[in-house]
Amino acid sequence: MNPASKRSVLLLVALATLAGALAFIAPVSGQDDGQAPFFVTAIPSGYRDWTFISVAHEEGNLNSFSAVLGNDVAIKAYREGKLPFPDGTIIAALHYQFVPSEENNKVFGRPQSFVAGPPTNVQFMVKDSKKYASTGGWGFGHFQNGKPGDEAFMKPCFPCHARASRDLVFTQYAP
Amino acid sequence: MNPASKRSVLLLVALATLAGALAFIAPVSGQDDGQAPFFVTAIPSGYRDWTFISVAHEEGNLNSFSAVLGNDVAIKAYREGKLPFPDGTIIAALHYQFVPSEENNKVFGRPQSFVAGPPTNVQFMVKDSKKYASTGGWGFGHFQNGKPGDEAFMKPCFPCHARASRDLVFTQYAP
Repeated sequence: MNPASKRSVLLLVALATLAGALAFIAPVSGQDDGQAPFFVTAIPSGYRDWTFISVAHEEGNLNSFSAVLGNDVAIKAYREGKLPFPDGTIIAALHYQFVPSEENNKVFGRPQSFVAGPPTNVQFMVKDSKKYASTGGWGFGHFQNGKPGDEAFMKPCFPCHARASRDLVFTQYAP
Repeated sequence: MNPASKRSVLLLVALATLAGALAFIAPVSGQDDGQAPFFVTAIPSGYRDWTFISVAHEEGNLNSFSAVLGNDVAIKAYREGKLPFPDGTIIAALHYQFVPSEENNKVFGRPQSFVAGPPTNVQFMVKDSKKYASTGGWGFGHFQNGKPGDEAFMKPCFPCHARASRDLVFTQYAP
């Protein structure tokens, strides 16, 4: 196994362990009918034109470049420092592969430049304190090629975000 | 000298060499009065609300996280694949420090997450094919704490961007 593969496996093990531990300490309720009630199953319209919140990069298996955008309700709350986020807030995370830019590196004369590669998925957090009462008021959505993630994939969303210190949201506003 | 410092010095040398070489092969004209005609000296209003184009990361001395936004003219041109960009296009590059996220890393259980740290500068490219005729139709702006870069700092903008293959613009639209 090459070092990159080994890192990927280690990361998966770590994530699985973390997900298991979190599922244990923060069980998701309200799934008796087999339908997780906190799934967002339709892509919010117009999200690609929303306002920029911030950027992020995850190394390892994810190797992702993220742009986080928000609708008007989200942006107003972020700029006013309002917590918890009000109902109607939607936050979108657009994920791309984190890839080197050959063109930029030629100009710089060394391999230092990374850009957004092919898109991988889009994720959403939708605030509706009644509809998603069992998951801190947030619905979670994940779409790859326009199709939502299945239940097993979606289960870790809530317990992981429950560890974020600002109303389940990790991303902070970049001025 | 530690490896990080050595890398920084090597990068500075490489950049200085590149800037020198580029200045030689692509001299900036029209500066007889001591004023570079391609400076954008006022921050375009409302740029923070513009539409997301893409993200980038530069390693080394820059260690930057960039979000690139565009005004409506820019976005329309990008989405239609229109080149050269029409007059009125403005592209903004918001730069931040590339910093690890302690909060995210605790959740992931390993140091893998990087986010936008303190803002460092904002740069602009403004398309006006008459006003900026001597620099490919583009004016260049750089603002740190609201103040524009001086002439020496701004000189490499045009010759470096002249090497980009799409009308002097490096950043490509992320879908």
